[in-house]
Amino acid sequence: MNKLKWGLIGGGEGSQIGPAHRLGAHADGHFALTAGALDVDAAKGKAYAQSLGVSPDRAYGNWQEMLEGERAREDRLDLVTVATPNSTHFEITKTFLEAGFNVLCEKPMTMTVEEGEEIVKISEDSGKICAVNYCYSAYPMVREMRHIVSSGQIGKVRLVVANFSHGHHGDATDADNPRVRWRYDPEMAGVSGQFADCGIHALHMASFIAGDEVRSLSADFASTIPSRELEDDAMVNFRMEGGTVGRLWSSSVAIGRQHGFDIQVFGETGGMRWASEQPNQVYFTPVGGRTQIMEKGEAGLSSEAARLSRVAIAHPEGFPLAVANIYVDLAAAIRGEPAGTLPSAADGLRSMAAVYAAVASAKQNGKWLDARPPMFQD
Amino acid sequence: MNKLKWGLIGGGEGSQIGPAHRLGAHADGHFALTAGALDVDAAKGKAYAQSLGVSPDRAYGNWQEMLEGERAREDRLDLVTVATPNSTHFEITKTFLEAGFNVLCEKPMTMTVEEGEEIVKISEDSGKICAVNYCYSAYPMVREMRHIVSSGQIGKVRLVVANFSHGHHGDATDADNPRVRWRYDPEMAGVSGQFADCGIHALHMASFIAGDEVRSLSADFASTIPSRELEDDAMVNFRMEGGTVGRLWSSSVAIGRQHGFDIQVFGETGGMRWASEQPNQVYFTPVGGRTQIMEKGEAGLSSEAARLSRVAIAHPEGFPLAVANIYVDLAAAIRGEPAGTLPSAADGLRSMAAVYAAVASAKQNGKWLDARPPMFQD
Amino acid sequence: MNKLKWGLIGGGEGSQIGPAHRLGAHADGHFALTAGALDVDAAKGKAYAQSLGVSPDRAYGNWQEMLEGERAREDRLDLVTVATPNSTHFEITKTFLEAGFNVLCEKPMTMTVEEGEEIVKISEDSGKICAVNYCYSAYPMVREMRHIVSSGQIGKVRLVVANFSHGHHGDATDADNPRVRWRYDPEMAGVSGQFADCGIHALHMASFIAGDEVRSLSADFASTIPSRELEDDAMVNFRMEGGTVGRLWSSSVAIGRQHGFDIQVFGETGGMRWASEQPNQVYFTPVGGRTQIMEKGEAGLSSEAARLSRVAIAHPEGFPLAVANIYVDLAAAIRGEPAGTLPSAADGLRSMAAVYAAVASAKQNGKWLDARPPMFQD
Amino acid sequence: MNKLKWGLIGGGEGSQIGPAHRLGAHADGHFALTAGALDVDAAKGKAYAQSLGVSPDRAYGNWQEMLEGERAREDRLDLVTVATPNSTHFEITKTFLEAGFNVLCEKPMTMTVEEGEEIVKISEDSGKICAVNYCYSAYPMVREMRHIVSSGQIGKVRLVVANFSHGHHGDATDADNPRVRWRYDPEMAGVSGQFADCGIHALHMASFIAGDEVRSLSADFASTIPSRELEDDAMVNFRMEGGTVGRLWSSSVAIGRQHGFDIQVFGETGGMRWASEQPNQVYFTPVGGRTQIMEKGEAGLSSEAARLSRVAIAHPEGFPLAVANIYVDLAAAIRGEPAGTLPSAADGLRSMAAVYAAVASAKQNGKWLDARPPMFQD
Repeated sequence: MNKLKWGLIGGGEGSQIGPAHRLGAHADGHFALTAGALDVDAAKGKAYAQSLGVSPDRAYGNWQEMLEGERAREDRLDLVTVATPNSTHFEITKTFLEAGFNVLCEKPMTMTVEEGEEIVKISEDSGKICAVNYCYSAYPMVREMRHIVSSGQIGKVRLVVANFSHGHHGDATDADNPRVRWRYDPEMAGVSGQFADCGIHALHMASFIAGDEVRSLSADFASTIPSRELEDDAMVNFRMEGGTVGRLWSSSVAIGRQHGFDIQVFGETGGMRWASEQPNQVYFTPVGGRTQIMEKGEAGLSSEAARLSRVAIAHPEGFPLAVANIYVDLAAAIRGEPAGTLPSAADGLRSMAAVYAAVASAKQNGKWLDARPPMFQD
Repeated sequence: MNKLKWGLIGGGEGSQIGPAHRLGAHADGHFALTAGALDVDAAKGKAYAQSLGVSPDRAYGNWQEMLEGERAREDRLDLVTVATPNSTHFEITKTFLEAGFNVLCEKPMTMTVEEGEEIVKISEDSGKICAVNYCYSAYPMVREMRHIVSSGQIGKVRLVVANFSHGHHGDATDADNPRVRWRYDPEMAGVSGQFADCGIHALHMASFIAGDEVRSLSADFASTIPSRELEDDAMVNFRMEGGTVGRLWSSSVAIGRQHGFDIQVFGETGGMRWASEQPNQVYFTPVGGRTQIMEKGEAGLSSEAARLSRVAIAHPEGFPLAVANIYVDLAAAIRGEPAGTLPSAADGLRSMAAVYAAVASAKQNGKWLDARPPMFQD
Repeated sequence: MNKLKWGLIGGGEGSQIGPAHRLGAHADGHFALTAGALDVDAAKGKAYAQSLGVSPDRAYGNWQEMLEGERAREDRLDLVTVATPNSTHFEITKTFLEAGFNVLCEKPMTMTVEEGEEIVKISEDSGKICAVNYCYSAYPMVREMRHIVSSGQIGKVRLVVANFSHGHHGDATDADNPRVRWRYDPEMAGVSGQFADCGIHALHMASFIAGDEVRSLSADFASTIPSRELEDDAMVNFRMEGGTVGRLWSSSVAIGRQHGFDIQVFGETGGMRWASEQPNQVYFTPVGGRTQIMEKGEAGLSSEAARLSRVAIAHPEGFPLAVANIYVDLAAAIRGEPAGTLPSAADGLRSMAAVYAAVASAKQNGKWLDARPPMFQD
Repeated sequence: MNKLKWGLIGGGEGSQIGPAHRLGAHADGHFALTAGALDVDAAKGKAYAQSLGVSPDRAYGNWQEMLEGERAREDRLDLVTVATPNSTHFEITKTFLEAGFNVLCEKPMTMTVEEGEEIVKISEDSGKICAVNYCYSAYPMVREMRHIVSSGQIGKVRLVVANFSHGHHGDATDADNPRVRWRYDPEMAGVSGQFADCGIHALHMASFIAGDEVRSLSADFASTIPSRELEDDAMVNFRMEGGTVGRLWSSSVAIGRQHGFDIQVFGETGGMRWASEQPNQVYFTPVGGRTQIMEKGEAGLSSEAARLSRVAIAHPEGFPLAVANIYVDLAAAIRGEPAGTLPSAADGLRSMAAVYAAVASAKQNGKWLDARPPMFQD
């Protein structure tokens, strides 16, 4: 099986997200890093790409050069990953899609709803894959939860309760640290801070597991560190198309929470709970029965969950391999093989619509607003 | 030390709350059950009281008889506990207070805000104790959390996140069971279901630990089992007088949660978490540091936490002894000794104001409303 | 129902065990403290007894006076609890049994195997109850585990693994503290330190749940703080009469373990686990299936488990109420009502035989020895 | 940085261990699979190797062919991984070492102590790396524990308590399943069942963290499923050279335990605990203080722990990346860069000596025996 040719934009030396993508793309042997524009410093980016095995002619100084260099080649890249600063995602993703490349874009896919709609349309027109890296949805046990819902094991979903809270921005004396500050500065982060940064992962997960979409929401935002213009704590209530009630809390000042992303899904005949710090278990409770601890790798899981696990039961698999699972599914989709449900441009668009709706709701004292992008409204 | 004379109204044979109060009153030897009107069935109540050691002349057929019999005696009751159905709390509490008895009332103290204000005034005028059984606040480690805040160990409290959710009413096929149904029927439960039943415990706890009061709130209620008139799932966002942000989720359809009452308190320089199913630990995190597991009984706790613990570190103490701690403090207060902070009539009133505000907010699509009783508004 | 008349020896002001017994005896209203010899300081003991409501004529200066005073009375004590220093348990228990009193003795029941056999014989001859306070066996969920075994739900028990380890004696700089030192001094503690102090609770529990007795054992003892003559860390392997394999680790230098008493029981068709710091749950796993979280108070538990629980599911009940459950069963046994399996003089004897066997085995480099008292050998 | 050339023996299609090694070698981009003899079925092995990108001339039918083909090449393999059935490890490892290759051998390195000593000598003579895949020692937080000990943070280590127990062989009706049966059959598994399979991982870990070696041991083995010739449950007490006391329980009939590998290390001034199912945390307790939850990725960890982590704090990293860390260190060692402490041939030898000592001790009723290989005895 030949490796697929992979190009990476951003993710240069010292970046956090770059190693996760490289490990994800390489872990299962599906992709080979073939081209890269890894750094805003062109020389550094070229050198780093070559140190990672990219041939000199495909180590580019920026994404525009990469586009020029790659669009003409016969040995075309099979996939381009966009891991640049948030505000550039839209333009790069759009341009590569239009040039006929498959794209995996980091979240947020765009900075506005309008941009999101544009990407969705381009993606549809091009017939190319445009995936967004909501990688938590690729954990085997998250896929199992989606399967539990879709196969009717807990009946209609009444309620979803999700949290994505941490305390890593809770130190006011650290609030001017540039690494922290930009997230609460509209110039750089856009209209929302913590909700756009973490909350939308949880909102995507709620939809992914429930197999339904958010229709309306009401939000309460707070800047608990007063110097912040954007929110560092957000509560969003929502309703899904099918009537499911949703509650989503996201905070960056929850001192003591490390990576407090967890989700609970309650249906007519059962409930379940998953937490990202222990991603290999689901606590499942049938109505009237005892809570059961489900394990990644146990006998009888869905094919989706089984397919995305590499080692035996209770041998933990972690975050980098959830990213790898996105690449597993991308490889399958590119090769025309059966693939799981990849987070799509439509998902990226829905997130952006929810962010804008939440910001508007919070400004209007929690008024309930339509959370859908215009193109998906009735 | 002579035992204090204790009278109990309600809590007859087969009740859930009666044994908790009897154990609570007797556990530490402070009170002797001296009089009782334990059952709506007068004969049964008298017989049961006598089986518990009450002398025949103080085993009454109803609370009115008990009032008549006891108000005239020289060997007066030191405390009367009201553990009758919710709708009777107001009248009984009011009457006994007016007659000069100290009263411990089960929650909710009243069914309306106006009644609550009346109790507060009577209680103030009478100079008698009127306590409400928010017993969770009497766990040693909850007292420790209050101490941590009041002694400035986590700085100003930015955020409180509380849950009180269970799944015991999650079975729609059981929804017509009378034991369940009444809680969602306005005829019997009043204006609110789950929030009034469980949520107000969590709201009281938030205020108790933060040392502050709720000023305003916005609510989202849902009846996820459609046959229910009152809510079985509630989300309440709030603000305290000092600006603290609050989030409170309470559900009775969270299948798999057993007694999911937990609270997280986040301040400027630290955070902490407590859960009622493991009430003897607090997880404490100083900003920038590691989470520490605090244990009931460890060296160096506050005198409040130390005073209310009976056995050595890591020997668990549970719910009945939290109720007992309320009686420990009542005994101290009655004897004029130093006592801890008992949940008061004002607390009971504030709960009722919050319930009405939440109901009104939910009906007005989450509008932010004043959550304070009129007598405590500016 | 008249209260039973209860006498307490030891457990005076400032003792740890006294409050646990008083709370245990009073919690459910079965016993009234009627007589006491609470302190080695006669005057202090008398005064304290009276402060607890004992009438002056039954507040004694020592246990001999109490024996004299009580044996002649018509309104005899129904139960005498012995909570004095370990080395006096034998004589007091023996004397009161011979005088026709029911006795609850703190552990260890005796300091030698011979004394233990004597108590067993006297207890049998007298027809009186002689119980030993292995109170952990009275937790509802421990009774449930015994029921699970006896009802065949996990088949034959293959293996029991028990730990009773803490770190409270792990500070060498504190080793000369009298409160700690005596436990490792043969003059005061007898032949064994940590194993006799904590290990025998776990060994009793193993037998209690498995419904079988220890036949032979091999021990490895260590004094990890070299100044100690007796062991502060012990490992005991054992075999039960029915062939069950046992492993028991007990340590007092396990820094970080608080009250690390837990037990795992593995049978042919299932396994289960219980931990004393979360005593209200059992983790149960059927062979080939998922681990299930059993809760105190859940529907369908055995009558034994249901009978010994006071409050609803997931409202925790802790250590003092396990002691109270011993008194619940004592009250039932004294009244001739159906009672649960009380830890008996035979259990106290077996513990002592196991202690002596373990000490001898450890001295003989782990030689396997008969762990049974002579009177129970074939 | 050029990729290192890697050869794999065994680990063909359908094997469990093969994917773990491939992912481990590829995850961080250090190695490229360059040669392989992957299957006992030569044709299948060749085809599978080519499907993984191995060029046809380096896809071999068996390890002898691979040796012939590779020893002569100028573009020599940098590393050969031996992942064949246990009984072949010795011969293949020996042969490749003698031919001048670096080798990573799966555990057990050999089937006898004599073979182990031979490998150690050959490895020393050859100057080549011979590592054994005790991959758990490469978890970042295990490296941190070793650092905590070596930097004196808990003083002298008094006691190590390790478990490696699961229940996956607990079903007697499954005992004849070939996948299970061979482990308890001396023909295939050698002298020991569960202890040799899992226990030695835990024993290696004890030495690795404590920075000391096992000197003597006493064992108790049981075949709780009677048809088994070799033990399915083992308890081993041991002493290290420096006097540290050790306790190690390993079972395969512990129904409900999934991957129950955990270790506790207790020193003079602190204790710590780690569990393989949550490998990213260490619970650390300073003597007299509170237990602290240490997190992979937190500020202030040792360079060893920091170096072997790829993603931010509380983003879990699991078992495959622990294997990858072995390859990270192998790459560094091969390149002559600073590397961590790789599990060595000496470690593999010590394990085998401990297995034989434990088997002999168990047969002699727990007699204490020297656990060291002859070449490491005084």
